[in-house]
Amino acid sequence: MTKISITEVVDSLTAPWQPRDLATANDAVVRIARFHGAFPWHHHDEDELFLCWNGTFRIELRDREPVTLGPGDIFVVPRGVEHRPVATEPAHGIMIERPETQQYGN
Amino acid sequence: MTKISITEVVDSLTAPWQPRDLATANDAVVRIARFHGAFPWHHHDEDELFLCWNGTFRIELRDREPVTLGPGDIFVVPRGVEHRPVATEPAHGIMIERPETQQYGN
Repeated sequence: MTKISITEVVDSLTAPWQPRDLATANDAVVRIARFHGAFPWHHHDEDELFLCWNGTFRIELRDREPVTLGPGDIFVVPRGVEHRPVATEPAHGIMIERPETQQYGN
Repeated sequence: MTKISITEVVDSLTAPWQPRDLATANDAVVRIARFHGAFPWHHHDEDELFLCWNGTFRIELRDREPVTLGPGDIFVVPRGVEHRPVATEPAHGIMIERPETQQYGN
């Protein structure tokens, strides 16, 4: 039962695409990562929620228009949908996943 | 599959303690509410995650020291722990709960 500061964790993240767990509540794991460049295409067997904390990134989706997120924007990638986050400039994204969610997909 | 803007939802919230659902991913429901004043004491059968979006509020806990959250601070109230959020000035808090979580507790 301790408080977690997102801004402190953000300051400690230097490499992109290395998620850090912030907290777990029930079966929801809240993670944050620095986004920079293009992450490989993948899909999950679970839904994945993205919340843009700062900067701007887009979620590219197979056969759909990409979705660009700025600070405070949320987008949920439904389970099974192939996607990849892309950030032209460094940004930070919060993800809400399940404990079994694999970073590089299923 | 649409983008949700937290800042737009925040602007539409005028009354305190009326949570608005932002998104659902798996069994995690992400809500936001305007906090102002003291909410009644209660507990849930599920964990409840609080994330301070703006302003400042504290989570008071029975038989424990209160936890004060500012923007970007996260605190998880474990299931069964009696608590109440209190905001002296208006603030906005994001909650991650389960679909069955009752606002006024169990």
